[in-house]
Amino acid sequence: MPDIAILTESDLRRAVGLDHEAVACIEGAFAALAAGKVVMPPILSMPIAEHNGEVDVKTAYMPGLDTFAIKMSPGFFDNPKIGLPSLNGLMVQFSSITGLVKAVLLDNGYLTDIRTAAAGAVAAKWLARTDARVAGIVGTGTQARLQLQALTLVRPISRAIIWGRDPAKAERLAEECRTALGIETGTARTPGDLAAASDIIVTTTPSTEPLLDASALRPGQHITAMGSDADYKCELSPTVIARADLYVCDRLSQCLQQGELRAAVAAGAVTADIACPEIGSIIADGAPGRTDDSAITICDLTGTGVQDTAIADLASRNAGRAGAGITINSN
Amino acid sequence: MPDIAILTESDLRRAVGLDHEAVACIEGAFAALAAGKVVMPPILSMPIAEHNGEVDVKTAYMPGLDTFAIKMSPGFFDNPKIGLPSLNGLMVQFSSITGLVKAVLLDNGYLTDIRTAAAGAVAAKWLARTDARVAGIVGTGTQARLQLQALTLVRPISRAIIWGRDPAKAERLAEECRTALGIETGTARTPGDLAAASDIIVTTTPSTEPLLDASALRPGQHITAMGSDADYKCELSPTVIARADLYVCDRLSQCLQQGELRAAVAAGAVTADIACPEIGSIIADGAPGRTDDSAITICDLTGTGVQDTAIADLASRNAGRAGAGITINSN
Repeated sequence: MPDIAILTESDLRRAVGLDHEAVACIEGAFAALAAGKVVMPPILSMPIAEHNGEVDVKTAYMPGLDTFAIKMSPGFFDNPKIGLPSLNGLMVQFSSITGLVKAVLLDNGYLTDIRTAAAGAVAAKWLARTDARVAGIVGTGTQARLQLQALTLVRPISRAIIWGRDPAKAERLAEECRTALGIETGTARTPGDLAAASDIIVTTTPSTEPLLDASALRPGQHITAMGSDADYKCELSPTVIARADLYVCDRLSQCLQQGELRAAVAAGAVTADIACPEIGSIIADGAPGRTDDSAITICDLTGTGVQDTAIADLASRNAGRAGAGITINSN
Repeated sequence: MPDIAILTESDLRRAVGLDHEAVACIEGAFAALAAGKVVMPPILSMPIAEHNGEVDVKTAYMPGLDTFAIKMSPGFFDNPKIGLPSLNGLMVQFSSITGLVKAVLLDNGYLTDIRTAAAGAVAAKWLARTDARVAGIVGTGTQARLQLQALTLVRPISRAIIWGRDPAKAERLAEECRTALGIETGTARTPGDLAAASDIIVTTTPSTEPLLDASALRPGQHITAMGSDADYKCELSPTVIARADLYVCDRLSQCLQQGELRAAVAAGAVTADIACPEIGSIIADGAPGRTDDSAITICDLTGTGVQDTAIADLASRNAGRAGAGITINSN
């Protein structure tokens, strides 16, 4: 058997960052997905209710790429009580020619963080106004920070506004982003206040109740909703989807089941046959995106296996080139 | 993060063999499955038609066990042309309390071989006549050899008859088993000839057409059909299921989709509401098994995630006790 690379989170952090290379990688993954040749089975999901946990498995095969990844993402929500992070996991990379294991990426969820934030950059790149300067970030976790950083890669962001349920956390994140990104930052009292002042809004929470109402929107805004990835989550009021001039998703079948679209359809705000281009079809097939500066656009991101396969391939190639990690023979 | 154990196929071969410990492990897994508390999501399956390949992912959570495994099994059927095995794969073991990765089991499919053969032993232990002496093995691959070896653990097997499409391979396997197991062995010209002379029949092929007809059966026989694990495979004629006095499966939902039961129901030989106890309910709940020496019994095995979780736990514990493998910190 060929040797297998074992890469740790540190190896992978050195190999891939939240930068233009990662954004191009995820943009390419969405384009391939829209081209219709990607094989992406439904997510395998296993609840472990006894320990307030769950594990999701995602994968996809991208023609033209000689590897595919299987990602295992456990979420165990009592972990913080014992000083451990809720989200963890790893990816295993296989040859798509022989099925042999090529690499084990012990990333503790880092690559998911990067590919998720990079998707936010792709959404803004294709849907937000080119002169969008003020970013409103709903949430105060890892993705709140990374989504803001991702926006700065594709738009001239000069100011960020943060809202979180815990105002102290919002203050801390605003402070941190001011230093790290060198932009003006502040906090908002409510998601509505945040929306009133933002050109781009990114929602990043695990909320199960809408945080943003259509009345808070104004013409020209773009909203990326990346928090909902389960059939009980929801960040946008159904009226927001109905109000938007353009609703775009990462994968329609997933968004109907676990994106913002699910709750909007369930509430009758839109019908299931609403025109819902996938972001990849805008990137690759010239499907219409933002048509004018006053349009309100939404991108509903649930997270796709093809992003995992693409980022694992990039990380593994970069790590290999740098001679990172150890190799082991499985025999 | 706690350290992660990396175990190779050699480490795992030393940790677990096809023996009474493995059989007891799989027997316990089936019992837990029948007790109804196991969480076992449907198999994730991804075809990679371009390279004549596929990958299956199985998992299960067994209450009471502080680990669960996710198994990834690629099958790439052009591999033999370039000197590589078709079947490969690995398992990743997680804590069922925190979801953290505990071990990466680079077994190249070895643990699947063992848990599959051990299930054959469990089936014979609970369903074959106690005086069964002649084993008929349909097929000449790895499972043909292992299923025969498994039977010798639970029944006084003194003779084995092998049938394969390629008579030379059947001869070779017969020779090999004679030496390895110290029993009398021979080959049969047809599956029917094999059945006429066997007390226990185990079918182990990836056949898509029935190999065994009801007319070949005689009272008192037990048949374990382990080859079919996909909706296009089938080793037994539908009449065999109809003729049997007792049909038992590993997991009813799986057997209806990819076991022998699928083809039998499709052919109208039995109805989908046929009484189909799972092997675990016979082990754990006292559901009736073989009721008399003249009954014909069948066990339909499709392979379950709970077997993977159980064998990974056993292998990992034994390897840990022996200080096998290397450890790595994912940070």
